[in-house]
Amino acid sequence: MWQLTPNLNGESKDPLYIQLYLYIKHEIKSGSLVPDMKLPSKRKFAQHLSVSQNTVETAYGQLVAEGYIESRPRKGYFVSPIDEENFSLPRDVHHVEEKPCKHHGYTYNFAYTGVDFESFPLSLYRKLMNEVLRSDNKEIFQLGHPQGEFELRKLLSEYVYEARGVRCSPSQIIIGSGTQTLLKLLFQLLPHSKFAVEDPGYHRKVTLFEKKETQVELIPIDSDGMLFSNLKGSSADVAIVTPSHQFPCGMIMPVSRRLQLLKWAREEEDRYIIEDDYDSEFRYSGKPIPALQGLDTGENVIYMGTFSKALLPSLRISYMVLPASLIKTYQNEFFFYTQTVSRIDQKVLKKFLKRGHWERHIQKMKMIYRKKRDVLIDEIAQYFPETVEVIGQDSGLHLMLRLNNGMTEQEAIDRAAKLGIKVNAVSEYGKNDGQTVIMGFAVLTTEQIKAGVKLLAKAWFD
Amino acid sequence: MWQLTPNLNGESKDPLYIQLYLYIKHEIKSGSLVPDMKLPSKRKFAQHLSVSQNTVETAYGQLVAEGYIESRPRKGYFVSPIDEENFSLPRDVHHVEEKPCKHHGYTYNFAYTGVDFESFPLSLYRKLMNEVLRSDNKEIFQLGHPQGEFELRKLLSEYVYEARGVRCSPSQIIIGSGTQTLLKLLFQLLPHSKFAVEDPGYHRKVTLFEKKETQVELIPIDSDGMLFSNLKGSSADVAIVTPSHQFPCGMIMPVSRRLQLLKWAREEEDRYIIEDDYDSEFRYSGKPIPALQGLDTGENVIYMGTFSKALLPSLRISYMVLPASLIKTYQNEFFFYTQTVSRIDQKVLKKFLKRGHWERHIQKMKMIYRKKRDVLIDEIAQYFPETVEVIGQDSGLHLMLRLNNGMTEQEAIDRAAKLGIKVNAVSEYGKNDGQTVIMGFAVLTTEQIKAGVKLLAKAWFD
Repeated sequence: MWQLTPNLNGESKDPLYIQLYLYIKHEIKSGSLVPDMKLPSKRKFAQHLSVSQNTVETAYGQLVAEGYIESRPRKGYFVSPIDEENFSLPRDVHHVEEKPCKHHGYTYNFAYTGVDFESFPLSLYRKLMNEVLRSDNKEIFQLGHPQGEFELRKLLSEYVYEARGVRCSPSQIIIGSGTQTLLKLLFQLLPHSKFAVEDPGYHRKVTLFEKKETQVELIPIDSDGMLFSNLKGSSADVAIVTPSHQFPCGMIMPVSRRLQLLKWAREEEDRYIIEDDYDSEFRYSGKPIPALQGLDTGENVIYMGTFSKALLPSLRISYMVLPASLIKTYQNEFFFYTQTVSRIDQKVLKKFLKRGHWERHIQKMKMIYRKKRDVLIDEIAQYFPETVEVIGQDSGLHLMLRLNNGMTEQEAIDRAAKLGIKVNAVSEYGKNDGQTVIMGFAVLTTEQIKAGVKLLAKAWFD
Repeated sequence: MWQLTPNLNGESKDPLYIQLYLYIKHEIKSGSLVPDMKLPSKRKFAQHLSVSQNTVETAYGQLVAEGYIESRPRKGYFVSPIDEENFSLPRDVHHVEEKPCKHHGYTYNFAYTGVDFESFPLSLYRKLMNEVLRSDNKEIFQLGHPQGEFELRKLLSEYVYEARGVRCSPSQIIIGSGTQTLLKLLFQLLPHSKFAVEDPGYHRKVTLFEKKETQVELIPIDSDGMLFSNLKGSSADVAIVTPSHQFPCGMIMPVSRRLQLLKWAREEEDRYIIEDDYDSEFRYSGKPIPALQGLDTGENVIYMGTFSKALLPSLRISYMVLPASLIKTYQNEFFFYTQTVSRIDQKVLKKFLKRGHWERHIQKMKMIYRKKRDVLIDEIAQYFPETVEVIGQDSGLHLMLRLNNGMTEQEAIDRAAKLGIKVNAVSEYGKNDGQTVIMGFAVLTTEQIKAGVKLLAKAWFD
């Protein structure tokens, strides 16, 4: 016993039992105390250390719980049979370098994610949040419905009907922490399908990443969107499209192409169209183009919407509408998946919709973004040569710019970056002409857009 | 032209151009206007309808954008070649029935998700939220880092070291909207691995659901947790375990078994242990058992933690610590995945940790939950026969109860339900003796626990 003489310190912030526990554990790990060695009885050890018997008992209890020692009935405490060679010195923490976000460090970032933050209704949002965070609102303390809050889904079903012509009942809607989260769920719901994606397109990368190569067909686009002849000639079952505003090229799929897609989907069992309607709220001439889902006479369209563009990307709230057959499968097999969006945030959003703020916000943002878009186009016309082409500017929060000055996309991006300006690669989204970049205009102020374009003129045409 | 005579109503809430657009669209869809039919010129049509030429122009513009009509240079506007047979009457909305959450409609729900809501620091949380929702906090308006806010990850790395003995740098941490979300990411990071899961165990169902049957090994548990001989005899590469508090059986894995697992993981390339440390904060005798990750001398442990148990399940915030090699793979290949937790919520949580509220909250909750657990155990001792066994009560927010009265699990659950009480099936988590149920005690008040146990005595032993 006398070899067990820890330096217990009554002044330490650690209680005496913790100090004793750590000491014995160290002795076992280092091999000073070997398996099956008997430990002093609690009473004797307490006397020896001049501590209370309770201190020794608690330390022994902790060591027993962790499996370092064991209590043998009527015999006392013994070191457990642990192969002490398996204890090595704890490694140092590997210093893993932080990988920065790609959008850092620019003076003017023509980002296509992000919103105009001057016009976010922050004090209203705070007010609604304070209304939700009340102790009588007991629901926020428990897990909610896997599909999301019913009240929010009900308001969403009304909104998508009125604003987008989408027909559904609230029980067909699933809320999720972003479009990627929901797309992953779709990939699970349709495990054996072959997916046709627009090339270039937003869903190309994630689909190629998530599915086997043999389960993806890259379909070129023409001025009407996904090329129907190529889709028809492919062996795909599911077409993922952005008909209201193709990403990144900006074209609108006309009704004739939409009907072709729908007819195609009806021709075989288990064919679907996934319609990602990510920024259709913002159309700058006339009214928004109704969703493809509203033309669907069968059960073939999966509609996806998001609050990332029209409200706030950092909130991470998207939603999708499943056809009745698929929602049945989801409810039967996937219902054990927990909802991925905070119930508190859902309830705030519910109040936001319920009181009409959502529609007013969209109207307000449409004016603000139209102004920004107009400034961007005007500045481009003023400072860039006439040979430059602006593409897909009728809706959404970005446009494409074809430089036509012999510069490659990469050169254009690099030259812009040297002057502190971020413009974005089309090539990230697939096939392209190699001389076009993407410019978002939601985040920058009109003054910043003006200053940015002047610098770009220098970077590209001087 | 004279067949085109819509009833335009100046009093309607829809502008005239919308009414005109809807009218022409309807005529095309119903086949009254057929492909290639010429539409009246804007000027003549405006005169005919006694509206401004601008109204007609906007209506035509919308129809062109949607592809119903087209403008042919120097010839005018024509109906587009659309096969009108493809338009069917829009279907009615299928009434899809709402599937209720499983926890509804009980008087006393011994749930094992959910927290004591009386003691959630709501006004503090509201205060922190109000601090975050400020207009000078521009970060909240843009997407954040894919792994989550750096500051939050830094505080987490300090917390898991101090409280759990986990060694990592902030850049090894990934935050996500729940453990399932993070587990899905792990399954993607380890696509070819074979996963060993505890049976019964929390991860059995989700792993069987996400991976092919051939990629899952069900490993029985003994009183020390996952049976090592079975793991060793299996062809698994990755063991998913809950060593601090096995779910649902509640045992603690002793250090000898932990060392066996670690040695096993080091023996072959690409072997990992996924340690789900979901409720280790709450140990009711002595201090919490240090995490397995802290014993890892190699790079073989993936550590997972959550705020669902110790803070609030409805927030949907969990995190995991990847070994350096895996985080490199993630950063190289998975970095395009957007973070799934609201940046606002992350910043609130950051302040909560930074100011020491997190540790104080855990201490406070530990006392509250110990009290509830003691009441539950006392009531069971008082009202149930001595033959009843309480299992796994040393930590966490639930315990198991073996009835030993000849009643099956299902009978026990059904009889409880008839009196308005929810107890939970072990069989949902796999192999079991068929006469044991799970009872959580975090959500109910001590009064409710008392009332519930009295009713259960009636249901089971009368």
